[in-house]
Amino acid sequence: MLPLLTRIDHVGIACRDLDAAIARYEATFGLQVVSLEVNEEQGVREAMLAVGRAQLAAGPAGDLRPGYVQLLEPLGPDTPVGRFLARRGEGLHHVGYGVRDIGQALAAIGVRGVRLLDERPRHGSMGASIAFLHPADLGGVLTELVQAAGPA
Amino acid sequence: MLPLLTRIDHVGIACRDLDAAIARYEATFGLQVVSLEVNEEQGVREAMLAVGRAQLAAGPAGDLRPGYVQLLEPLGPDTPVGRFLARRGEGLHHVGYGVRDIGQALAAIGVRGVRLLDERPRHGSMGASIAFLHPADLGGVLTELVQAAGPA
Repeated sequence: MLPLLTRIDHVGIACRDLDAAIARYEATFGLQVVSLEVNEEQGVREAMLAVGRAQLAAGPAGDLRPGYVQLLEPLGPDTPVGRFLARRGEGLHHVGYGVRDIGQALAAIGVRGVRLLDERPRHGSMGASIAFLHPADLGGVLTELVQAAGPA
Repeated sequence: MLPLLTRIDHVGIACRDLDAAIARYEATFGLQVVSLEVNEEQGVREAMLAVGRAQLAAGPAGDLRPGYVQLLEPLGPDTPVGRFLARRGEGLHHVGYGVRDIGQALAAIGVRGVRLLDERPRHGSMGASIAFLHPADLGGVLTELVQAAGPA
């Protein structure tokens, strides 16, 4: 079977105060924010911090796209991340893996007994096409597929 | 400030049944186990599954080391992962970031207000030197630093 995943794209971390979380990751690890967005559809304000200077030089897309720490602050309590914080507190929320073609990846995974939370790709950070897979079918891990914007 | 982190090295996932979790990740994503170890010190049986074929070709160490899904089954209930499972159930347990020199990284982070769970590096998967940082100082995220074995 061809490997579907090209890389660990990002780890998604739920936080109550985005600015404080950014400050902490900058001060502790020297990471830098490369994107700051509000995603109304997902109910979050979020920052992407690039991990890996050498990988940054390889360009924004493809297998050598850098990894990211994605910090997520909910826009309100009645959002997925808001409910996560109320239930579990701050911490790791999901993991995102890179794929070359998200349509093909969803079609392949859909016949392998893993439920798709998104039948069709949605808009993710930095122009990516993304889709989530059901955590109950992946050992409790909310899993995201990411097709980066630009040439694969 | 120089960036300390060279890559997202791995995501650590706590599971009750390692063989079932491996089978799920193989069948869903086509990932392959590259290391299967028992770490008595940490109380786990664990598998490393490489993510990213192109990155694999770049060699085992350095910035282009592949990412890994690390599946962790506790050796018993009275272990860190055993207690995690009892408290939170299966799911994301920690994230590991690559560093070039773990001794230097610990020294730098130790003066930035993040408590070190390991003052000195310990033995990690695949011959790596690793150390954990306190989740309470990083927004609830148990964070591991990884200096891969071999040339950096």
